[in-house]
This record gives sequence, structure tokens and C-alpha cells, in this order.
Amino acid sequence: MGSDDDNNRNGSSKRSEPPRGPPEHCVEIIHPVVPPPRRSWLEKMRNRLKEIFFPDDPLRQFKGQSPARKWVIGAQYIFPILEWGSHYNFALFKSDVVAGLTIASLAIPQGISYAKLANLPPIVGLYSSFVPPLVYAVLGSSRDLAVGPVSIASLILGSMLRQEVSPIKDPILFLQLGFTATFFAGLFQASLGFLRLGFIIDFLSKATLIGFMAGAAIIVSLQQLKGLLGITHFTKQMGLIPVLSSVFHHTNEWSWQTILMGFCFLLFLLLTRHISMKRPKLFWVSAGAPLVSVILSTILVFAFKANRHGISIIGKLEEGLNPPSLNMLRFEGSHLGLVIKTGLVTGIISLTEGIAVGRTFAAIKDYRVDGNKEMIAIGLMNVVGSFTSCYVTTGAFSRSAVNHNAGAKTAVSNIVMSVTIMVTLLFLMPLFQYTPNLVLAAIIVTAVVGLIDVPAAYAIWKVDKFDFVVMLCAFFGVILISVQHGLAIAVGISIFKIILQITRPKTAMLGNIGGTDIYRNIHQYKDAMSVQGFLILSIEAPINFANATYLNERILRWIEDYEAGQDHVKKEGSDLQFVVLELSAVSAIDTSGVLLFKDLRRALEKKGVELLLVNPMGEVLEKLQKADENQEILRPNHVFLTVGEAVALLSTTMKGQSSTI
Amino acid sequence: MGSDDDNNRNGSSKRSEPPRGPPEHCVEIIHPVVPPPRRSWLEKMRNRLKEIFFPDDPLRQFKGQSPARKWVIGAQYIFPILEWGSHYNFALFKSDVVAGLTIASLAIPQGISYAKLANLPPIVGLYSSFVPPLVYAVLGSSRDLAVGPVSIASLILGSMLRQEVSPIKDPILFLQLGFTATFFAGLFQASLGFLRLGFIIDFLSKATLIGFMAGAAIIVSLQQLKGLLGITHFTKQMGLIPVLSSVFHHTNEWSWQTILMGFCFLLFLLLTRHISMKRPKLFWVSAGAPLVSVILSTILVFAFKANRHGISIIGKLEEGLNPPSLNMLRFEGSHLGLVIKTGLVTGIISLTEGIAVGRTFAAIKDYRVDGNKEMIAIGLMNVVGSFTSCYVTTGAFSRSAVNHNAGAKTAVSNIVMSVTIMVTLLFLMPLFQYTPNLVLAAIIVTAVVGLIDVPAAYAIWKVDKFDFVVMLCAFFGVILISVQHGLAIAVGISIFKIILQITRPKTAMLGNIGGTDIYRNIHQYKDAMSVQGFLILSIEAPINFANATYLNERILRWIEDYEAGQDHVKKEGSDLQFVVLELSAVSAIDTSGVLLFKDLRRALEKKGVELLLVNPMGEVLEKLQKADENQEILRPNHVFLTVGEAVALLSTTMKGQSSTI
Repeated sequence: MGSDDDNNRNGSSKRSEPPRGPPEHCVEIIHPVVPPPRRSWLEKMRNRLKEIFFPDDPLRQFKGQSPARKWVIGAQYIFPILEWGSHYNFALFKSDVVAGLTIASLAIPQGISYAKLANLPPIVGLYSSFVPPLVYAVLGSSRDLAVGPVSIASLILGSMLRQEVSPIKDPILFLQLGFTATFFAGLFQASLGFLRLGFIIDFLSKATLIGFMAGAAIIVSLQQLKGLLGITHFTKQMGLIPVLSSVFHHTNEWSWQTILMGFCFLLFLLLTRHISMKRPKLFWVSAGAPLVSVILSTILVFAFKANRHGISIIGKLEEGLNPPSLNMLRFEGSHLGLVIKTGLVTGIISLTEGIAVGRTFAAIKDYRVDGNKEMIAIGLMNVVGSFTSCYVTTGAFSRSAVNHNAGAKTAVSNIVMSVTIMVTLLFLMPLFQYTPNLVLAAIIVTAVVGLIDVPAAYAIWKVDKFDFVVMLCAFFGVILISVQHGLAIAVGISIFKIILQITRPKTAMLGNIGGTDIYRNIHQYKDAMSVQGFLILSIEAPINFANATYLNERILRWIEDYEAGQDHVKKEGSDLQFVVLELSAVSAIDTSGVLLFKDLRRALEKKGVELLLVNPMGEVLEKLQKADENQEILRPNHVFLTVGEAVALLSTTMKGQSSTI
Repeated sequence: MGSDDDNNRNGSSKRSEPPRGPPEHCVEIIHPVVPPPRRSWLEKMRNRLKEIFFPDDPLRQFKGQSPARKWVIGAQYIFPILEWGSHYNFALFKSDVVAGLTIASLAIPQGISYAKLANLPPIVGLYSSFVPPLVYAVLGSSRDLAVGPVSIASLILGSMLRQEVSPIKDPILFLQLGFTATFFAGLFQASLGFLRLGFIIDFLSKATLIGFMAGAAIIVSLQQLKGLLGITHFTKQMGLIPVLSSVFHHTNEWSWQTILMGFCFLLFLLLTRHISMKRPKLFWVSAGAPLVSVILSTILVFAFKANRHGISIIGKLEEGLNPPSLNMLRFEGSHLGLVIKTGLVTGIISLTEGIAVGRTFAAIKDYRVDGNKEMIAIGLMNVVGSFTSCYVTTGAFSRSAVNHNAGAKTAVSNIVMSVTIMVTLLFLMPLFQYTPNLVLAAIIVTAVVGLIDVPAAYAIWKVDKFDFVVMLCAFFGVILISVQHGLAIAVGISIFKIILQITRPKTAMLGNIGGTDIYRNIHQYKDAMSVQGFLILSIEAPINFANATYLNERILRWIEDYEAGQDHVKKEGSDLQFVVLELSAVSAIDTSGVLLFKDLRRALEKKGVELLLVNPMGEVLEKLQKADENQEILRPNHVFLTVGEAVALLSTTMKGQSSTI
């Protein structure tokens, strides 16, 4: 039955009837351990590189297609709009229009607010909600992503650039640096996608992100105290302590009119948010609230001439569409280093948000989003944006949720939103002149409060204490040091944990579960019993240079412990005869790992103990074979397929031995 | 039988008769998967920290001892000389004297040569062979280590400090920086030991070291062309290209007398080395050759007044023991950064050599060397050295091998060597005045040639191509860029490989080995057959944030491949019903990993496929239990101890299902 088509390596063509329970005839056959079929190292390397860079096998769909069809698939691959565009119909369009108008009503106030958060002119926020969504609609593969500026990326962009240039003293230079940073962010994002290095964003773990988001939300909210309290001389720093001290050192600047009005609108917005969270069907309550607040507050200010009573307003905004900004990009000068760094950090943060949002909704609606392709789409959208007076944009979580709830079917909802913004830019800008800054602050606070996810933090505490520590590091790093340092610390600790897992792999002593030939961790399974004369250890990580020394010492300590334990039961008169290493979890090995086995074998030989290996995997077996020319380790009857077979064969040998001694 | 003393977790007190072959009655019992006994997270953390920092359990020997005995053990722990000193006898002393005199004859010429390699006055090399061996004899736990200056550390110290200070123009400052760097090296080494961070040196893998050593040997040998060719205007750079161009741009400076004499001695030294390698019993031939060369060449120069014929000599050396150098340490000034960096690099490199040498000979003689304790010993030895005009020292490989071959029994051989050096320093220094530099160059070349280990490089190529690449990077990095950059690149690539293994863990499809309930990789075992309706996948790495996304996509691709493969065999009419994840190799999991299972479960549910888990380990099971309050994943009959039991139970269910549909 092993002889049927060997060429088909798929595996699914080889099948057997399911064995029902253990086989009826319990034959005492020892099954051989064999290496996988030989492949050249070039072939192995090709396979490995493919698994690293093309795990999703993007060329698979091209296989076995006609050349013309290949062109069509290729074009659809690059421009997903060609794929879904051909099936587009009026029913879908109706849904998309409703969703598009809903997210536009959110995008206008948020755009203005987030641009202020980034220390950019408010109108740049609207520009950024016009061009990028159009680019994404053509290139993007998510159907639910609502594209535009987001709070975190705005915060980082604004705070990082402010380290070197003042947005108040030198607004033109600041704007130029903003566009240049956007260009680099886009370039970096697209490059990650082109080079298939998308897995880099996986290094921002969920714990890191939760801590980071919560910290950033607090930093952002604190900044809004300027608008909500009406303070004019506010600190330029971001940290918790300087901001709070600035707030309480300028109590004389607090304006009661601003505070009253601001907190009324904040309360209103938080209330609508609460309603929509309780009843997802009422999503439009919180989606429409910001626009309602903007309109209401603008009318109030205009009617009562409140701007003359200490309430600060946005002021005059220019009408017209995005001016070109290619000439604003600055690729030389002393700020280039900072701009590139800002681009990298905002690029990776906004990418993480965009990809995560895309994947979340794709999972809900059961379609697939290609991470690397999304990176190219988001990256190009930002590069084009930087040419057309936009700053960093991505798929925003809150707005995409509204988009999804409002029934968006395709990226056409982004186009509808974009057209709405266009109309606003062309005709409605004068209406925003009297919009008070306090309402923008209230909108930002409401938006970022949702980023503080206490239940998720509690779940992490419950499941994994170390992840919780990582989360706390990100959180306190962000609020006490700086946004980018907090992030770097958390990522560093996460990677350190992984390296530590490799450096100190687990080893466990296995025992036999009575009446079977199953061997399991003796600590976990109380009824697993050790076998006389055998010390069975499982090694639970790849063996490499970073842990070979430790494993050597740890295994020798297991043996010492075993022998020490035997002192108490000396009367039974049996000594350690075999050390069995169960290698099922050793997925890889390097030259140091191979040496470990040789060293162990020699150390055990001096004690008169034999070293047995169980179930070495393909790669491990191959490397051992190559390194072990004298068959020191891979001797006959020293490598087994299961622990059970090793014990079965060798315990009989042992009896024979002990009778002769 | 499971009820006998549960308190004894040692495992060795619970024993059963070895099961001979599979059990006689093949009962169809499904064995439960149970979590390990509950422990608080504090206890878990304590255990984990212990495994990270105290894997060797150093306090174990104190258990159950009387207080007085504890003091004795404690003192012996800190000063190993107290332990072996009490058993010391005349027979051991005789052996140690022979070995000590032998390594002294090697240490004198090597000390002078290596100090020149480090751009320090030759006498500092002798000072460094006097004090540090005495300190090590008291604190060190290796019996074979011969302590003194070594070539690599000398090279790095000299070349790094030369980046900022010229040893010719500013010899006093250079010497001060050398002592200060030695102090930092010692401090760093001792701190690693005190903080139990000794595993850091494990990150220098064997492949890295072989490449690094070979590159350094070539760099060192090239530097010796100055002495061997008699060039006076030699480049100050270290790289391959500047040195070679310097050599061939100064052909007019080549001195035939120097070349003739130099290459004669080089040939002599290489020949004696060859003899000793062929016949290890003749170790004294190569051990004595350097001293013979020095004496012979000195006599020749003196007799023929060769120093007047273009052969450069060492010149006058001061008599007397090490002067104190505490006042030479400079902890301020512009060079502090460089000095600390130099201390770190030379410290870690010399530590690596010292520990590796100690372990090698301990393994041969079957005693244990405690890595962290050795680090403290080597570190303190260098700190004391920096106070007494010594530069960085460690256990040298070549000299320790001679020591071992000469029959050294304890660290007393170091004391004998030290006393011999003392006598030399006090009385014999004038004799070295006419020693030609060329013989020192020849001694260095002979010593470092042995560092180029071609057979080991070939073995690495054969076993692990990636390790070979790491080796090449270290090698070419050292000879083309710089010693420390080459090292950093190689270490970086090694760690990157580990992280890549984590980011892209292997997954394999398992099949049943006919007539058993063993399941193995279908690619490796040709006779393993897939089971109808089941897709059995093993995941071969811990699941964490860095690979959860990849694993999700990869598992879905396995399913797609499986379903695509089924199209061809549709006639059999069976669809995928169960995806079995075999988790025996998943030694750890984090919150992202837990989410992976939830996501997978939902994705599979939409396809009408059930997700089964097999053999989750203690930690994994615990975390799943904590995170899975609604029992989405850990449902009854969805977690099994072995694949065989899962298939046995569920293939019957499946039959039932398919008859009702």
C-alpha cells in the first residue's frame, strides 16, 4: 500500500481506512526511523525562502490558466477593483452610498480634529480624507476599510516633528516636513509589501498594541485639555507630568465659558457613544453625533458671538481642492534624519492599524485580505497623498466599524465619502469658520477613549502574566517617556522573551501511562510512571548554539537528580541504564546542536549509560547523519520511532545484561 | 499505584515494571488530557527565573548540611583552592612543576609578542603573565587553564584603541587607556558572572567563532609582515586591503637579512608545531620551540651585531616586578566611550575563549566547570590585573593544551609559571635586549595559524549551510571591515535566524503508519497514510505573537490544499470533517497564540469542519483553559491525548454523521 503513486506528494491521495482504536493484532514490530526523501540543499533553501517570503503562495491562482486569463488575473491582482467592479450592481451601490455618507459625516469633523492633533492646518485633515480613499478604492482589497487620518499616527507625526521644528513659529517648514514624513511612511509601507517583509508588523503583539493604544489615548486626551479648558499658554511637551503641571500652573487662563460648553459637548458625545455601544443597531447615533456637535456648536458661537467671550474658533479655512505638494517635499537639510524616522514610526504604526482592521472585518465577512498587497495599497496611497497635500492616512478602526455597521459592501463607500468631502472642500468651508476648537477637542477625546481596552487588559492578565508586563511597559513607556520609546521598549521585551524561550528550552521527564505505550510528562500526568532503568526526557525546542550549553548542563542535572532519587530506593537495586531523548519537538538543529549529542554521548559513556534518540524529525535526522560519520550516535538500536518501542526492545536487553553482571 | 507518595515529585520513586511491547489487552480507553497540578503564578515565575539564572542549582550542595559545614562549603565555593588544596600532595606537585615550567617557557616569548600585538610595551606582556595566574589559581575552578595574554584579545585591544590614540605618538596615554579597558573588561566579566548572565556568551556560536578566529588569524598574521619583512613605515589600518597595499608600496624597505632570518625561524616553529600535532606525546617540541627560537635568535643578533644590519630588536627592558597602575586608570575624558566599548568587546571575546577552553578540558578529565563562577574568577583577575600594570588576560587555548599535555594536575602549575616569570622579571630582562622583533612575529604567526580550522569549516558546510554562511560573514566581516563589526554581523545573523525560525515555524501533515496508532510526518515517512476525513497537522514551535498570523494563514492553506487534492478523488465522496492539531511540540503559548485557536475554530466552523487539539502541554492547556471561558475550544471530545485516540473515537462518530446527512 506504500507503492501507490509516489509522485503525488499532496498526501491526500494516499488514504487508508481510519484505524478504529489500537490495532487488533498487537504485533511487536519495531518501526524504523527514516530520513525524508533526499533533496539538494538548493531545493531546500528555495522551499525555505518561499515559506519565509511567499507563505501565501500568491502565484497559485495562475497555475494552469491560459495566457489571456493570466493577464486578467494579474491585472485583478494588482487592481482588485477590476475583480469586484465587474459584478457591481445598483443594490450594492445603494448600500455603499448610505455607508459612504455616514462615514463622511464622521470624517469631516475627525479630519479637522486629527490635523490639529498633528499640529497641521485643519484643512489638511480634509485634504487627507479626499485623495487617499480614492487611491485605496482602486488598489485595496478590503471591502470595509474606511480610509483617512487616524488619531495615533497624527499624534506621533505631530509630536516627533515638534522635537525639532515649532509648528507655530515655522508653520510652512513644519508642513513641508509633515508631507515629507508622509512620503517616507508611504515608501516604507509599500517597500515592506513589495519585499514581502510584511511579517515585520507581527512583532507588534496584541499586548504591546493594547498598552500602546491606551497610553497614546491618555496622552492625546491630555493634550485636549488645552482646548477643553481654554488654556492659551500650553506646554509643548507630551508626557503626563509636564502636561498636568502646565494645566495647573495656568489656572488663571481657564475660561469658564469654554469649560462649560466643552464638557457639555463631551458629555453628549460620550453619551451617544455609549448608546451605540449598547445597541449596535443605533450605530448612526454615535456616527452622526460629531457632525451634529460641530453644526450645533458653530451655530451657538455664531449666534452668541461667543468667540468674543474667550471661546477660540478655527478661523477662516480656504476653499478649494488639494493643492499639489510635490514641491513641498524636502529631501535635504538638517531635518532629514528626523523626517525619515518619523516616516518609519508613523508608517509602521498606521500600517499595523490598517492591516489589523482589514483582517478583522475580512474574518467577519469571511474573505481574505492579502497582508503584503494591503501594504502596497496603503503605501502608494500615502505616497500619492504626500504629492497632494495629504498627511499619513490608513484604515481607521472606529470609522471602519461605522462603515461596516452602516452596510458598506465594497470600497465604493470610500469613493462616496471622498466625493462628499470634495463637495465640502469646494463649497462648505466658510461654514466652519466659527466652529469652536473645544468641540474638536471633545470629538478627539471621545474617539480615543475607545482605545483604552480594560477588558482586554484584564484578559491578558488572566492568561499570560508576561504579556501583561509587556503591556504595562508599553503603556507607561508611552505616558512617561515618549510614544516611540514606549513602543520600542515593549517590542524589545517581547523579542527578548522569545529569545529567552530559545535560550532556556523546557525539558520534561516522561513516564508511561499505565496500560498503554503512551509516554507523557510525569509532572503533568500524575498516573504516568517512570520505567526502571530508563530516564526519558523530552526536549521542547529547536537545539542551537544559544541553548546547546544549557541543554547539556540541564540533561546532566536530570541524570544527577535521577541518581540522587535512586539512593532512597537502592534496595530495588537498579541503576540508570538508558537516557532516552524524545525529540518530537526539536524541529531544527544546527552544528552546535549536533555537537551536543556527541558530547552527551561521551559523558554518558563514562557513566556506562546508553543514549537513545526517539523520533528525530527529517531535518534533525539528516544533519545527524551528515555529522555522525562514525555512527557514534545513530547506532543501530539507538534510534527509535516511539518511546514505547525503545522501552519495549531495550528493557528485554536490560534484563539479559543485569543477569550477566 | 498512582496513590503512592505524591509529595515526592522526583519521579524516580514512582516506578512500574517496564511494559514489554504494547499492552496485551488492547482496550479502547480514551485517556483524558489533564493540566499539571495547580501552582500560583508567583511560584511559576520563581521556577522560571530559577531556570533562567540558576539552571545549575548552585545551592543544592548546601541542603541538609550543618551550619559549620555550610560555611566550609561556602568558602570552598568562593575559593576553589580550599577544596583541592587540602588533598594536595607531593606527587601532584611534581606534575605541576613540570607543567608550570613548560608553559612558562611558552609564556615568556608569547607574552612579549602579544603585548607588541596590542601596541603595548613588551614588558606589559610579562607583567600580565605574573599577577593574573596567581589570582586565577585562588579563584578559578579549572585545573588545566593556563592563564595569560592571548592573541585575539590583544589584537582587538590594540586595534580598537588605535582608532583614537596613536601608540607611537602618545604611548603613555595609550597605556593608560589599555589598563582602563582591562579594568572595564574585568568589571564586565565579573558582573556577567555575579548577575548570572553567563548565557550571553552562548550567543557566539561555534560557526561564528570559527569564522571570526580564522579572520582574526589572517589579520594578525598580516600585521606580522611588518616584523617579518622589516618594514618601518607600516600602515596603521587592520584590513586586508590597506595592509597588502602598504606591504607592496614599501618594497624598498624590505630587508633581506630580516626576511631570511625571519622565515627560517618561522619555518622552524611551524615544523615543530607540525611534529607536536602529529605526535601529541612530543608536545614539548612545539612548547619549547618559541623559547629556543628567542634564545637562538638573540645570541645570533648579539654575536653578529645584526641589529646594525637592519634587523630591529626589542631594546632595553626594565627589570623589576609589576609597578602599581591604579593611578593610570582614566575614568574621564573624551576617550571614555571608546575605552568602555573596547573593554566590552575584549572582555566578551576573552571570556568566550577562557570558558570554552575550561569546558573542553573539564569534559576530557570529567569534572565540571561552573560558567558563572569562572566568569567571576576571570573578571576579578582582570580587575586586579588592571591595578598592577597588566592588560586583558584569559585562559589561552594553545597554552592550556600544552599545560594539559605536560601533565598539569591543578592550578599550581599556574603558580609555578608565575614564579618563573617573576624570576625572569627580576633577573633575566637584560638578556632580551637583543631579541629581534622578527622572531616575535614568527611566534605570533605560528600561534595564530592554528586558529584557522579548515576541517571544522568543512564539517559546518556539510551539516548546516546556514551556519556556514554565518561563518563566512564573520570571516569576511573581520578581514574586510573590522574585527568588532565582523563579530557583530555574525552574531546578528545568528539571532536573526533564530527569530526567523520562530516567525515561520514548521507545520507538517501527519499520517498513520499502517498497523499502528503512530502518526508521523507524511513527507518523511512514505508509508504514513492520511486518514479519510481528517487533516492532521503538527505545529512545531511555540505559538506567539510573531507567528500566530503566519500559522493562521498556513493552516488555512493546508486545508485549501487538502480540499484541492480531494477534487481528484471526489468519487470517494468524503469531505474534510476534522482538522487535528498535534501540539506536542508547542512548548509555550501567549495571548496571541490563544487567539489563533479561537480564530481558527471560527473559520473552520463556517466550513463545517471541527477543530481538535492533541496533547497540549501543561502551560498551553492552562492558558487555553483560562482564556476559553465559554469552552469554545476545549469542548468535550475535542481534546485528546494522542492522535490515535482522536481518530479512533471520531471516525466512528463520522460514520454515524454521514449516515444521517
